[in-house]
Amino acid sequence: MDALVDALPAGRVVTDPDVADSYARDRTFVEPGKPLGVVLAATRDDVVTTMRWASEHRVPVVPRGAGTGLAGAATATDGAVVLSLARMTAIRELSPADEIAVVEPGVITADLDRAAREHGLMYAPDPSSYEISTIGGNLATNAGGLRCVKYGVTRDSALGLEVVLADGRILTTGRRTMKGVTGYDLTGLFVGSEGTLGVITSATVRLRRAPDRPPATFAAEFGSLRDAGAAVAAIMAAGCQPSLMELMDRATLEAIDEWRNIGLEPGTNAMLIGQSDASDSQAVVERMEALCVANGASFVAVSSSPQEAEELIAVRRMAYHAGERLGACLVEDVCVPRSALPEMVGAVEAAAARHEARILTVAHAGDGNLHPVFVFEHGLTEPPANVWAAADEVFTRALELGGTLTGEHGVGLLKRRWLALESGPLTQEVQQGIKAVFDPLGILNPGKAI
Amino acid sequence: MDALVDALPAGRVVTDPDVADSYARDRTFVEPGKPLGVVLAATRDDVVTTMRWASEHRVPVVPRGAGTGLAGAATATDGAVVLSLARMTAIRELSPADEIAVVEPGVITADLDRAAREHGLMYAPDPSSYEISTIGGNLATNAGGLRCVKYGVTRDSALGLEVVLADGRILTTGRRTMKGVTGYDLTGLFVGSEGTLGVITSATVRLRRAPDRPPATFAAEFGSLRDAGAAVAAIMAAGCQPSLMELMDRATLEAIDEWRNIGLEPGTNAMLIGQSDASDSQAVVERMEALCVANGASFVAVSSSPQEAEELIAVRRMAYHAGERLGACLVEDVCVPRSALPEMVGAVEAAAARHEARILTVAHAGDGNLHPVFVFEHGLTEPPANVWAAADEVFTRALELGGTLTGEHGVGLLKRRWLALESGPLTQEVQQGIKAVFDPLGILNPGKAI
Repeated sequence: MDALVDALPAGRVVTDPDVADSYARDRTFVEPGKPLGVVLAATRDDVVTTMRWASEHRVPVVPRGAGTGLAGAATATDGAVVLSLARMTAIRELSPADEIAVVEPGVITADLDRAAREHGLMYAPDPSSYEISTIGGNLATNAGGLRCVKYGVTRDSALGLEVVLADGRILTTGRRTMKGVTGYDLTGLFVGSEGTLGVITSATVRLRRAPDRPPATFAAEFGSLRDAGAAVAAIMAAGCQPSLMELMDRATLEAIDEWRNIGLEPGTNAMLIGQSDASDSQAVVERMEALCVANGASFVAVSSSPQEAEELIAVRRMAYHAGERLGACLVEDVCVPRSALPEMVGAVEAAAARHEARILTVAHAGDGNLHPVFVFEHGLTEPPANVWAAADEVFTRALELGGTLTGEHGVGLLKRRWLALESGPLTQEVQQGIKAVFDPLGILNPGKAI
Repeated sequence: MDALVDALPAGRVVTDPDVADSYARDRTFVEPGKPLGVVLAATRDDVVTTMRWASEHRVPVVPRGAGTGLAGAATATDGAVVLSLARMTAIRELSPADEIAVVEPGVITADLDRAAREHGLMYAPDPSSYEISTIGGNLATNAGGLRCVKYGVTRDSALGLEVVLADGRILTTGRRTMKGVTGYDLTGLFVGSEGTLGVITSATVRLRRAPDRPPATFAAEFGSLRDAGAAVAAIMAAGCQPSLMELMDRATLEAIDEWRNIGLEPGTNAMLIGQSDASDSQAVVERMEALCVANGASFVAVSSSPQEAEELIAVRRMAYHAGERLGACLVEDVCVPRSALPEMVGAVEAAAARHEARILTVAHAGDGNLHPVFVFEHGLTEPPANVWAAADEVFTRALELGGTLTGEHGVGLLKRRWLALESGPLTQEVQQGIKAVFDPLGILNPGKAI
């Protein structure tokens, strides 16, 4: 560590155990190991210096952004150095004409979006954490969000990267253009690789034209999840192209109601919140409203102002915090083909009942992406056996339905126990081979992602 | 070859040199080598058998679809076996509810689109060759097309793949869901890899809701390319989201006029053709028309019927054939940031003048993707020195403007001579490392792509 401190500018390395511990955790319950220290990188040179030192001394490196991850990908391990990119916050370039930005990894996602909106543009990916998460972390996990039902996930906005490899060499991938097929898609390989292949020090991202008027929004209540699922299917099949389509189950609504009293009716077992940002958004939302009614909605509210729209969506934003009030949370992230959504929600409820687990389910319904939140006793560093058993059942059922373990949070540490269910031995062999090309010493975030 | 013939069902192997030669070429002027023979694979098992045999005997394999490529990626080399996937034409599944299809690689692109339209859906990627090209070839080159200005390239529609590796093992990548981040993005790695990493035997692709009314179309004539480029910039900045935005230069228009007499006016130096498939398409096209007029268009026609729309676009579809009438063609494919489009078109014209080369330029203008078509004497198997010199200048300028060598055609053989200008030695080292993970013997389409 002395050699690292000497090689870096003053103030870059933290070794105080208490401070280091605050950089060792993400937003999961996982208890981290004891890192040797934390590098607070401010420049690409700092990253190069750190990786050269790590290669020389064979020290594992755990890259991190803001630590808002939900899978343990940024959780520190014993004897590792944590490499924080949170201080690299420059928006190096923002070109309205080309609709691109070049950003450092520590830029807060919502800050980039706001900078783009000054030019009538937006940065589309909006994970729920977007006011506190970084672009680098979003890239590392290929984060999704609410808007991705219309605009795609982080991968769909990443055009090119600058990456420091394990040995400190600098690789440039991709391009500044909308299209390009020169060589293999290395950009796509790094996006979602959770810091196991290299450390992203800059990204060229695509911006999009922001809608020129406020979106229109509806919230619909249903007596059953099946009806709400049918409404989602009808809305998507009608080509409404919602810019947001969120589903909450009864358990989630109860948790929100206990906290904030939203006047939950006894017969309401699901709520669907949808939005259109099209040029004829009000007409589109009215079509979506009609499809909700046709599929059995007991009540539908349509916003008549941006304030009302925000109030409807605010209910959805309360969901995760409502869960955290009740206990420690294992936030899961299965994604199934859209038609399997009602069946998957039903399977979650059945697993909760069978294993006496408390599960709140929120879904990015337009994508078939469910977040079952398994609530257990505050203070436990590991979910109890009944929670693991219920989670096992949920993952197994998701895969049976043609789904995947993780739609947008990543594998990290938490989902490795189920990885073999989805990825066969050949996939794992190939992934290890790719890992070895970039990181032959195995020092980049070992034990994560694959 | 006897061992291969014995291992495969009867009729799968062609060794007659004349027949084999017809499977040895793509749509470039490149003279192929002499292959040992051609495997006409009808099943995945045929592909597995072929790759096991090729690994055992160290025989290079050149996978191919319909041979419509424009970069020489499917060009046979001496002593190789050509592996044609054109007979694997099954659409294994088409799910309207989940908006996906599972297809074999030999499916003709337009056939999948037509099958989807029976369910109100479409398969968005539409390379100009889409009536004769295959999904497998589109995946291998990450093909673009006219609609990709709105709907993205082939990569954006590929969810998962089944791939036979060099040693005959079967790898499954990706998923059936709209989102998913389990492990590295192997699907993206195979898309655009031109058959150098594995042989795609099945693909799960995303379908999209087809617009429920015919698109509206305009064609505008301009006195200068700069004005046309400014109109494109204004249309994109206004958020019109065209579903097609094509630009042709004077040389192209003259070639079309000589052939089909389109009444080309002396002062017309550029034509822009645009389309909207939005729900309010007529209004959007009228906004685009107004922006063309505001940027100096001398004449704008707006379609009032689907027939008229087709007539306007038909002019664009004549461009490539108009070039082929004049001689052999080197079709290039540079892509630049959108704002650099007028400057890039100007650079092409300057290169043509300086080197006395005949170049027709067509551009997917909304993407900044230009196809300068270098015309030279019929019958030559290699462009003359002045054409190479002009092409050198075009590529160099494209890279200087922040662009790329190839937007949608791929590298193949033709663009390898410029590859080092875009991809540095570290990129090439990393790509060779990845290649070795999948194909340690180097038998998959050696000498292409990277």
